[in-house]
Parts: sequence; structure tokens; C-alpha cells
Amino acid sequence: MPRIGIFDSGFGGLTVQRAIVSLLPSVDTVYLGDTARLPYGTKSAATVTQYALKNARLLAGHEIDLLVVACNTASAVALPALRAELEVPVLGVVEPGALVAARATRTGRIGVIGTEGTVASGAYQEAILRARPGAEVVARACPLFVPLVEEGWTGEGDEVVQSVVRRYLSPFRGEGVDTLVLGCTHYPLLKRAIARELAGVKLVDSAEAIALEVLSRFPQAPSPEGEHRFLVTDSPEKFRAVAGLFLGRQVERAEHVDV
Amino acid sequence: MPRIGIFDSGFGGLTVQRAIVSLLPSVDTVYLGDTARLPYGTKSAATVTQYALKNARLLAGHEIDLLVVACNTASAVALPALRAELEVPVLGVVEPGALVAARATRTGRIGVIGTEGTVASGAYQEAILRARPGAEVVARACPLFVPLVEEGWTGEGDEVVQSVVRRYLSPFRGEGVDTLVLGCTHYPLLKRAIARELAGVKLVDSAEAIALEVLSRFPQAPSPEGEHRFLVTDSPEKFRAVAGLFLGRQVERAEHVDV
Repeated sequence: MPRIGIFDSGFGGLTVQRAIVSLLPSVDTVYLGDTARLPYGTKSAATVTQYALKNARLLAGHEIDLLVVACNTASAVALPALRAELEVPVLGVVEPGALVAARATRTGRIGVIGTEGTVASGAYQEAILRARPGAEVVARACPLFVPLVEEGWTGEGDEVVQSVVRRYLSPFRGEGVDTLVLGCTHYPLLKRAIARELAGVKLVDSAEAIALEVLSRFPQAPSPEGEHRFLVTDSPEKFRAVAGLFLGRQVERAEHVDV
Repeated sequence: MPRIGIFDSGFGGLTVQRAIVSLLPSVDTVYLGDTARLPYGTKSAATVTQYALKNARLLAGHEIDLLVVACNTASAVALPALRAELEVPVLGVVEPGALVAARATRTGRIGVIGTEGTVASGAYQEAILRARPGAEVVARACPLFVPLVEEGWTGEGDEVVQSVVRRYLSPFRGEGVDTLVLGCTHYPLLKRAIARELAGVKLVDSAEAIALEVLSRFPQAPSPEGEHRFLVTDSPEKFRAVAGLFLGRQVERAEHVDV
């Protein structure tokens, strides 16, 4: 079975790894979390592209058949550079998420939330317009969402969580969007709190969208379960402590690498 | 007049630069913000030490007479490595802040807030106990405070700000501390919101404490105002946009460097 390389700035991309393995239990995966240099979302496109290339080169050394860029910010700014450099296909999370949103909306008014880097790049806005010309897209950065999730403060109804969610998302209500793209791998962990603020709005999780895209490339064959490795650039202990939040199960082993 | 090298993971150390220049207007400063790899506060001691050494080597090339580690996390974990490597004196922010707190307390119960890295290192706790044996120190990490400040959400009475401040700090009320060390350069920007939650508790700003320490080393001579350079590892434009928040004035020019 194929081996899929997946990288993210840190932990969030584990939701992408999880969605892929859930649909394709027999693939092997090598996950790289660039925890020594996270976050990517607040950094410039030039710096994020440089980091993405280093991550991709390391994963290319693991005989991968496909590279999945699980980080929305890196997908938004670094795909052309990654495709120019790598010999294997490179998939980002932006395009699949945009396609799902373009199909889901009835009113043609779509909201996008993500990091500062993702929103500033305009990548989701462009991809949605390619898929659905004439759509109206409103994009907004939500910088507090990632630290909230990493602190473990995600509960629906929690005073802090709902007040931050309300501050960022209440403007969407007046703008009449019926579909919202959760354009950062951390955001699905806030899904219930977001749904409480924006009742009736369809929430699009790009981790699920890209997993379907990967599935379409590798028709399933009956075979044993795949093997999964986890590499990180900062402390493996901290990675193991946080990974469960995103993966829904414990990671037994994570290995330190320099990129 | 002497030239002082100052580094921080990003923007927060500008409050230290500001406090030093305010007391010593004639010194030259070279400030390095490692914005491509911020934050330090969530990363391991090994990774932070490696970054701190790279920053120090770059500043050592600028003919500095003193190195000030403006970042609390780097001060807490990397001072021995920096002192072993550099030929000029190296000052961190932890020791001066701890000394001020040890002198200020009446009850001997002192609170410390900082990043995960600073709190886990135990550096403030140890420094306070050296200065005041028998003191009781309660330390707590407040990971949401840095992103709150960088989002510009610092207003006293703001619903989001006060709910986050209350979540982290209300336990200190039951613990009877009369002095609280703001052990991260971002936190003084939340001073009013913190004071509202902990009325009557003395707040210690380690930026002010280290500026007094630097002053004691360089008796002031009447001379023209010093020159100040700003170096950053990520985008200079973004640095200039955010720096004013910490410095209280605009930075005309920032230069990109690789470390």
C-alpha cells in the first residue's frame, strides 16, 4: 500500500492524519510536526514557504508516494514552491475545503475563518470563486482560536470560549453566510461552540474534505492496517502529551528530527 | 557610550528596550526579535537554548558591551549556556524581577505568572527563594495572555480580557499572595485588567527591574542620545506594524537577518 507523507506546523494536522487513516486504514503514514517553529499562521509567506520546503525535503527522504500539506497556512502560500520541488504529487487542504463549501452553499454567501496568513493569502477566496463563480466570500482571521484549543478550552457554553467565539464570529450573522469553512486544523475542535454562535450555518471541515480527495487517488484493497510514524522538531514528550487531543488516541512514540 | 545587545523571541522585549533607553538615553542598542521562530514560551528548554545561542552569536558580532536577554523564557532556561559562550556580561530578566518581588512582599507569599517554559523551569521560584528564604511562591502559566496582547485585546473591563484574566488569576486570591511577578514581557500590557482582578496586589514588571540593573552598571554621563537598531528574523513590515504597541512609538526601520 502507498505511504503518505503529512506535515503541519505542529499538532493540528493530526486531525488530517486521523481523517485519512479512518477512510484508508491500510495506508502507511509519516507525520511531521514542525513544533520547534510553530505557529505558521502569524508568519510571513516567505518564512512559511522556507519552512514548508524543509519539511517536504525531510519527508521526501521517507519514500512517500504522496505529500499532504495538512497546515492551511502552508497550503495557502507554499503549494507552488512545493510542487516545483517534489517529484511526488502534493495536495493541500485549501482546494478540497473550498470545493465542499462551494457545493454546500445555497445562498452563495460563504464565510472563511483561518489564521492571519491564510486569510491574507486570499487562497480560499480564490479557490471558492473558481469552483463557484459569483459566490460572495467573507474571510476573517481568528488568532485566539489556536491558543484556546491548545489550552484545552473548547467546551460549548464555556464563558471564555463563547466570548472569544462571539467576538470573532458574530459579524457573520449580519452578513447572511449559510456556510463557514473552518480553515485551520485546530478549529474543528471548537465546532460545537461555533455552531452555538452560528446556529443553522453549515460548517466545513477541510480535514474531512482532503481525506476524501486522498481516498479518490488510492482505491482501497483489503490488506492489513498501515504503519504510522510521528516525527517532531521540538520535544517528543510534549508532542505525545498534546497529540491525543487531536488524534483521539494516544501516540505511543514520537521521534525528534532536525530539518 | 556603551552599546547594549537585547534579544527576545519577538516583540515583547521592546518593553525592556524602552525601559532601558528611558533610564539611559545615551546608550546605543541593537535589538533582535526572533520573529521567525516565536514563541519561545511553549517550546522545550533545549530548543529555546539553541535559539538563544544563535541570537547571542549574531548580536556578539555587533560589538556590544552587554547582552540583555529580554525574554523571560530564555532568561529562565538559557543563561548558563549564554554566559559560557559570550565574552561580554549577560543579564536576564528573571533575577532582577525576583529581587524586586522579594523586597516588595510583606506577607512573604508571592505569585509568579509566565509562559509554560518559564514556570516549568522553576527559575523565578528559585531566584525568589535565594533572595528571601522561606518565601512561599505560587507560579502559574497563562498561555492565552500573549495572543490576547498580540491581538490588541488588553482593555480593562473588556468581556473577553477579563474572563481570561479571571480564569487564570482568581486562584491567587484564595492563596493570599500580596505580590505578583509579571514574568513575561507581554503581561505589563494587561496590567490594568490584572489589577482589576487582583485589587491590592503589588504587580512587579521585570522590564523596569532589569532597566535599573543596567543603570547600575553604566553611570550616566551627559552625552547625545544613543542610536537604536532593530533586527528581525521574519518580515520587517509586520514587526514595524506591531512594535508600536510595545514601544509606545513607531519604529522607522527594521532590518531582516538570518540567524
